[in-house]
Amino acid sequence: MTDRTTGPPPVHPAWLPDAAFAPVGSRRVLVAPGPDAGPVGETVVAELRRATAAHGGALTVLAPDDTAGDRHHDLVLGVVADGTQHPEGFTRRRSGGVTTVVAGGAAGLLYGLHDVVRLGERAFGDDHAPVVEAPVAPVRMLDHWDNIDVHPVMGQVERGYAGGSIFYADGRVRDDLSRVADYARLLGSIGVNAVAINNVNVHATEARLLTDGLADVARVADVFRPHGVRTYLSVSFGSPMRLGGLATNDPLDPDVQAWWAATADRVWAAIPDFGGFVVKADSEGQPGPFAYGRDHADGANLLARAVAPHGGTVFWRAFVYNHEQDWRDRRTDRARAAYDHFAPLDGRFDDNVVLQVKYGPLDFQVREAVSPVIAAMPRTRVAVELQVTQEYTGHQKHVCYLGPLWSDVLGFPLAEDATRTVAEIASGLPGPRTPEGAELQAGGITAVSNVGDDEFWTGHPLAQANLYAYGRLAWDPSADPVALLDEWLDLTFPGADPRVRETLHAFMDGSWLTYEKYTAPLGVCFMVDPLRGHYGPNVDGYEYSKWGTYHFADRDGIGVDRTVATGTGFTGQYQAPWDAVYEDLATCPDELLLFFHHVPYQHVLKSGTTVIQHIYDTRADAVDVVESWVSRWEALRGLVDDRLHARVAERLAEQVRSATEWRDQVRTYFFRKSGVPDASGRPIY
Amino acid sequence: MTDRTTGPPPVHPAWLPDAAFAPVGSRRVLVAPGPDAGPVGETVVAELRRATAAHGGALTVLAPDDTAGDRHHDLVLGVVADGTQHPEGFTRRRSGGVTTVVAGGAAGLLYGLHDVVRLGERAFGDDHAPVVEAPVAPVRMLDHWDNIDVHPVMGQVERGYAGGSIFYADGRVRDDLSRVADYARLLGSIGVNAVAINNVNVHATEARLLTDGLADVARVADVFRPHGVRTYLSVSFGSPMRLGGLATNDPLDPDVQAWWAATADRVWAAIPDFGGFVVKADSEGQPGPFAYGRDHADGANLLARAVAPHGGTVFWRAFVYNHEQDWRDRRTDRARAAYDHFAPLDGRFDDNVVLQVKYGPLDFQVREAVSPVIAAMPRTRVAVELQVTQEYTGHQKHVCYLGPLWSDVLGFPLAEDATRTVAEIASGLPGPRTPEGAELQAGGITAVSNVGDDEFWTGHPLAQANLYAYGRLAWDPSADPVALLDEWLDLTFPGADPRVRETLHAFMDGSWLTYEKYTAPLGVCFMVDPLRGHYGPNVDGYEYSKWGTYHFADRDGIGVDRTVATGTGFTGQYQAPWDAVYEDLATCPDELLLFFHHVPYQHVLKSGTTVIQHIYDTRADAVDVVESWVSRWEALRGLVDDRLHARVAERLAEQVRSATEWRDQVRTYFFRKSGVPDASGRPIY
Repeated sequence: MTDRTTGPPPVHPAWLPDAAFAPVGSRRVLVAPGPDAGPVGETVVAELRRATAAHGGALTVLAPDDTAGDRHHDLVLGVVADGTQHPEGFTRRRSGGVTTVVAGGAAGLLYGLHDVVRLGERAFGDDHAPVVEAPVAPVRMLDHWDNIDVHPVMGQVERGYAGGSIFYADGRVRDDLSRVADYARLLGSIGVNAVAINNVNVHATEARLLTDGLADVARVADVFRPHGVRTYLSVSFGSPMRLGGLATNDPLDPDVQAWWAATADRVWAAIPDFGGFVVKADSEGQPGPFAYGRDHADGANLLARAVAPHGGTVFWRAFVYNHEQDWRDRRTDRARAAYDHFAPLDGRFDDNVVLQVKYGPLDFQVREAVSPVIAAMPRTRVAVELQVTQEYTGHQKHVCYLGPLWSDVLGFPLAEDATRTVAEIASGLPGPRTPEGAELQAGGITAVSNVGDDEFWTGHPLAQANLYAYGRLAWDPSADPVALLDEWLDLTFPGADPRVRETLHAFMDGSWLTYEKYTAPLGVCFMVDPLRGHYGPNVDGYEYSKWGTYHFADRDGIGVDRTVATGTGFTGQYQAPWDAVYEDLATCPDELLLFFHHVPYQHVLKSGTTVIQHIYDTRADAVDVVESWVSRWEALRGLVDDRLHARVAERLAEQVRSATEWRDQVRTYFFRKSGVPDASGRPIY
Repeated sequence: MTDRTTGPPPVHPAWLPDAAFAPVGSRRVLVAPGPDAGPVGETVVAELRRATAAHGGALTVLAPDDTAGDRHHDLVLGVVADGTQHPEGFTRRRSGGVTTVVAGGAAGLLYGLHDVVRLGERAFGDDHAPVVEAPVAPVRMLDHWDNIDVHPVMGQVERGYAGGSIFYADGRVRDDLSRVADYARLLGSIGVNAVAINNVNVHATEARLLTDGLADVARVADVFRPHGVRTYLSVSFGSPMRLGGLATNDPLDPDVQAWWAATADRVWAAIPDFGGFVVKADSEGQPGPFAYGRDHADGANLLARAVAPHGGTVFWRAFVYNHEQDWRDRRTDRARAAYDHFAPLDGRFDDNVVLQVKYGPLDFQVREAVSPVIAAMPRTRVAVELQVTQEYTGHQKHVCYLGPLWSDVLGFPLAEDATRTVAEIASGLPGPRTPEGAELQAGGITAVSNVGDDEFWTGHPLAQANLYAYGRLAWDPSADPVALLDEWLDLTFPGADPRVRETLHAFMDGSWLTYEKYTAPLGVCFMVDPLRGHYGPNVDGYEYSKWGTYHFADRDGIGVDRTVATGTGFTGQYQAPWDAVYEDLATCPDELLLFFHHVPYQHVLKSGTTVIQHIYDTRADAVDVVESWVSRWEALRGLVDDRLHARVAERLAEQVRSATEWRDQVRTYFFRKSGVPDASGRPIY
């Protein structure tokens, strides 16, 4: 509908277009940010000022000592810092034709405002009883795998599919951080309150953010702060040697301890509300404590003690495994590694260490069992790590709405005889306890971000929904991911023809399962092309590699035997009943069958079909689905922004091409190997 | 034996160490370079001066009008340009205690000198009848796939395994061309007389060598000229648009023709003895005539007519195929492509076009059938292209002496009912004829070079033998490659302990077949890793790709059916008897079985074993051989230069590792697919 012929394209507003603010902005609003509002309070006022100015409403800002007077307001927002409200929470009610939001602090006020924005006209309907909202997880973080120097293999944003970094350009932190400000506003609107701004694989230039680059980090923190977002850095465990010129990184060495303490002092001197560090140690080539004969509690506590005086937190990643595995060795199982390394350390981590655990035991696959580590460490603060960037789920070229995957993971009843979910563990319901029985804070929920300097933020415009859903699920893991999808659609396409919402809802709801259906089947994982950064099919791509991710397909069958009885024993890492459920072929769910068992191609699934026929059928069916999207999207031309339409159309064409390639390679591979004909008679090569 | 602790390592002298000149240098030598000796004659004199000075002999240089006097000389070398000698040839005899070399020109004098150097003391033994030596092929070229700008994927030297380019550094032609001078001397000593100094994949910066870079090319040509080597450039067919700003590259466009003519004028004005152009067109993304609806005769003749007034030659590569093939399509056969494109054009190329044909129809594999194109174009000048750089033969990390492969190819009786060899075709015995019956010059023999700025020239020091053998076989394709190996050993390790020669001979003679035994079996080709530039095993690495190179292995069998009866019809491109020999499973040689036929794993080879057991056995046997080399090499410590010993030891360790990986992956892959147990009972995974 737009007609732009010159100049750079404007940045897409994502789920915060001006029109989304019309219900609020057209009303008479009173806001009382309170005496301790700070920059977040100023943001709330600025949002309301902008909205009311744009949409014809009126704004009254109540200074701390003012009284409201007798003028009628449609919406009243205020902070009541009396301890009755969660500091990030709020209570919304509708009474006597007035909608009120009472927040426990400035952040709660911001979140309450956006709650009203999301509700739109529904926030101004019939009176209703108070609704209390508060985040479940105390930390809701996004990790950026952004590099300052463009990495020769990984590019500027590792696993980034949306252009360059919004933080860095030309080998340094950008002077113009306006994209970061826009991003911070988006994050604040969905409740994300923490950001780590550099890659966990810390290369030479990026390592120096911790020291020489502090002034730049402070500038970035200044941009995030008004949106309730604290800034973190990924740091290298090798920093004492690399940056400090020390002879060792040994965590028990007093000079190393002193170096970290002094370094932390300087960080917090520059950024008093700095969050802390994210650390990938002894993982895929990153330095770590193993080199000194120390364990990961020694390593994490080293940093924790340096940041403790400042209230800082160390997010220590559990993604530790042997990435030089011998494919011939079937006893070693990468899925076991994190548990084997970390479970024995439970209770040894300092109070300000959070163990950051990927949701699955492998690596952000489209389907994995939930990591048993999450339930294995009741005396440790555990954060679950999700991946918003679509590393293994289509590189933001494929429509793949991940809300349902995360909802499944967060809601999975992993612990205590399946009474306690992943989200409850990560959110501290109840919280972990020290060996002495003292309560610890919860760990939180974290994820790898998917944005870049792309005009649509995320490459595929529909991938914005993943960022949105992540924030909303981190706030409330029990939220319905389909409802969140609709929420996102309403905000992003306000006032659009109903066909837009219907069509996009149809594409996106179920797109994760569609993606699964044309890629690696039944939880077997990988089968992706190492050449193209995990994009596109390559059934044997990791089969004879050092990475520990194998499917063991032969002419008779496929899958990884991870049972205690005959396999790697990984099922034994689960608490009851999951250890037994996964161990037994009869109870193991179909979708994880090949994650846990090696079965013949003619094994009959609970669905009633054989494994091989399931492989044949689902791949072909899924491509039929994706193909149907092309014409449906074409029918929306003129009903959405032209540039957005063109971008989605281009991505859909690629998704059809890629999914077809998946279908044909996987079907052909297994036909050649099994010799079993496809009962459907569809083409095979 | 050396003990160097500081400074850069000296450049290894390859097969021209000073000691190799002792037999000549210790004698009384008379040289009469004649009136037209030029810079090559000066080189001969300089070589003799250096040798006699170093080794206690004496040199008399006879000016054209001088007489020799009555002093006795042990060695007399002179030019007799009366037409009795081939201009690059010479006659050597021993009579009355004097060795004489009579050459037809300065180049022949240089080659005659090195003939005597190679013979060493044997040149000064009993009297013998005259030996007439002349090169068979008129052009004996090396192509350098060197880039000026380091390519993000291919590096500085495409398929280069020996460091950076000797020609280019820091984005330009080197100021210091001393390595080029050393290289030119090596080439002159083995009879190579042409060099193309840049990659056939002509990128932006390299394209400009043809125009802006001419002064630098002239400097390089000045360095090669004294060694009898003419300089060529690889040029882009897209030059008129890219460099000339024209609107088209259409070969029939008058402006395009005029641009090429004017460009050639400038090239030859700068370098009067410039050789000509090498062109890769319509191949793997390079521009070509197809874009304009023209064929490759139109394309080649465009350039040929521009260079004809200057006596220049165009080497036009026949490596044209669809590199965007659909792996699902079994009818398209990349092996057919060159013949299908070029055979119909026979007789249409201008007299100064040479069609440069890779020895096999695919791409420099360790074992391929010989390309049928070579015999298919009797009215076209054909050059055969070999690959000295070890792209598919171990990246100069593996010992793989290629002399026997090239000897097999050059001696293969491809044409006229198997009476005429590849070498005869390339060398013009008899020469090609125009459609009108006029004789044409022969095409020649060309190859991709394997040197870089590595201290040993070739990464693996033993890979020097490949460069040596290439030059010697290009001079005399009938030479015994094993004798050439010994020649190289004698020159490179003069005076060494006999165990050195014995051990290296044992490693290298047969190393090509050993390499074949642990890599892709029975002519099936590829199975290499696309991720690592064709190094290391990846059985399905190209199986579902666009590159047209498949093995079609399934649970029942393997191989490419290229028969006329049931396959792609490729066998029909061969002349009798090869069309029938390859077509028939009963007569197709074992080593090419899977190149031409798809057979069951239980198919019995002529060797008496099954295909599958052959795959199992040879891979394991070959690794046993490579493993045995390690201790044998270790036993030579102290008997060869320490740096060379260390380099070879390092490479041997890598060869063992890589060959073991090949063995285990290939054996396991085929066991998993076929289900047939290895009768030997050796480990499988």
